[in-house]
Amino acid sequence: MRQRVITAVVALIIFIPIIVAGHIWIDIAAFALGLVALSEVLIMRKKLLVSPEAIISGIGILAVIAPQSWWGELLPSYLKPWYIVYLFILLLLMRTVVSRNRFSFDDAGVITLSMLYIGVGFHFFIAARTISLAALLYALFIVWTTDSGAYMIGRKLGKHRLAPHISPNKTWEGSIGGSLVATIVGSVFWYFFPIGHFSLGIMIILTLIFSVVGQFGDLVESALKRYYGVKDSGKILPGHGGILDRFDSLLLVLPVIHLFGLI
Amino acid sequence: MRQRVITAVVALIIFIPIIVAGHIWIDIAAFALGLVALSEVLIMRKKLLVSPEAIISGIGILAVIAPQSWWGELLPSYLKPWYIVYLFILLLLMRTVVSRNRFSFDDAGVITLSMLYIGVGFHFFIAARTISLAALLYALFIVWTTDSGAYMIGRKLGKHRLAPHISPNKTWEGSIGGSLVATIVGSVFWYFFPIGHFSLGIMIILTLIFSVVGQFGDLVESALKRYYGVKDSGKILPGHGGILDRFDSLLLVLPVIHLFGLI
Repeated sequence: MRQRVITAVVALIIFIPIIVAGHIWIDIAAFALGLVALSEVLIMRKKLLVSPEAIISGIGILAVIAPQSWWGELLPSYLKPWYIVYLFILLLLMRTVVSRNRFSFDDAGVITLSMLYIGVGFHFFIAARTISLAALLYALFIVWTTDSGAYMIGRKLGKHRLAPHISPNKTWEGSIGGSLVATIVGSVFWYFFPIGHFSLGIMIILTLIFSVVGQFGDLVESALKRYYGVKDSGKILPGHGGILDRFDSLLLVLPVIHLFGLI
Repeated sequence: MRQRVITAVVALIIFIPIIVAGHIWIDIAAFALGLVALSEVLIMRKKLLVSPEAIISGIGILAVIAPQSWWGELLPSYLKPWYIVYLFILLLLMRTVVSRNRFSFDDAGVITLSMLYIGVGFHFFIAARTISLAALLYALFIVWTTDSGAYMIGRKLGKHRLAPHISPNKTWEGSIGGSLVATIVGSVFWYFFPIGHFSLGIMIILTLIFSVVGQFGDLVESALKRYYGVKDSGKILPGHGGILDRFDSLLLVLPVIHLFGLI
């Protein structure tokens, strides 16, 4: 527990100035976090980080994360940014041919999915900060308060298991409680630092939805870890596990906030 | 062999009028072929075609195949078409959570990759026909002449195995011969029915590249089948196998032709 707190404090001391500074700092942070998260999947999958597939997907995820505006100047107008990502998927497919059966269609599939799932999440991490500091903080507060709310209320009132197959400690009571806490905190934050042009009533409902999506993000990563038989996605954050463990909720929440046009 | 020829003749009698007619007919054909090809992967993967994942990926691949122009009217301007595809990937990820470990991250990965690989291929099948009948025929002729050229020259001169691990009957002699035949036929066709604004010299080089890419498409599908331990991707075309067997080269050639701005 002590180690967990120390890590959190150190991480926040690094993280908070970066998200306040924004611009190139948030870009660098998103690229670095995305690469580490991807490498965590590769390691779970027992792939070498110096293999052709790691290099292809590493560059590919940078292409996914890169802000939309970067592509305008780089590409001829008939090539859409998604096409560049498709080219990296094509390279992974070609790798299945030249690997002498060491790199399978399954491998290519898992890496493609990871590249997109992690990459799109961090793409909108940059997009949120580009809208405003408040937009990114709104998402972060929802995720953080959902997590801590669920943990505390679950410990006190938790009785009914939420997802015994993939995450045995979570309860329905904790989950519902966490989302209620997040909805209150998120809506109050939004009231003082508004983003978008919805009314307070709509924003309360949306905040609840985002909080539930955040919990789904957590469970997706739990299912992934359970499938690969590991406890944490990595060891980079002592007491917290890996980057994927810490950003799992945010990776799904940010793109869903985009669905409603808020970032 | 007789069955093979009969199937080919019947298929061409259906196929040729569709590509000549274009418009809505080519759209319907692309959607239908894409769905069948996707279901072939699902069956190889031993997934039910009435499962939630089949329904999600089925609708998802339709979204990938749909012409770019369709989205303009449907979506608010801040949502890019690729984002809709991302939402289907998100649904597949959420399916890993609610499936009680029956649908794994690997499954989601393979289905995501198939949806994109097959979907983008048929997306450009429509795009090529939208440019002109000549553009689509150019691609078809390259694929067809590469295949038949490789088969005939390989039978006569073939000595050195090309990819013994995944497709033992292919030889380097056949591969090189097939690409030379395709380059000649494709370039002559282009000379009479030009697309794009490159010179003949450039087009000869590009045609050679497209022919090589077509062979890669063939090998990607061979690697896939070898991995799942099947001989054909399906049985829909007696003597030819499945839709994926017949369209494997084209699925890679068309998007690569797009890379050079020709479709």
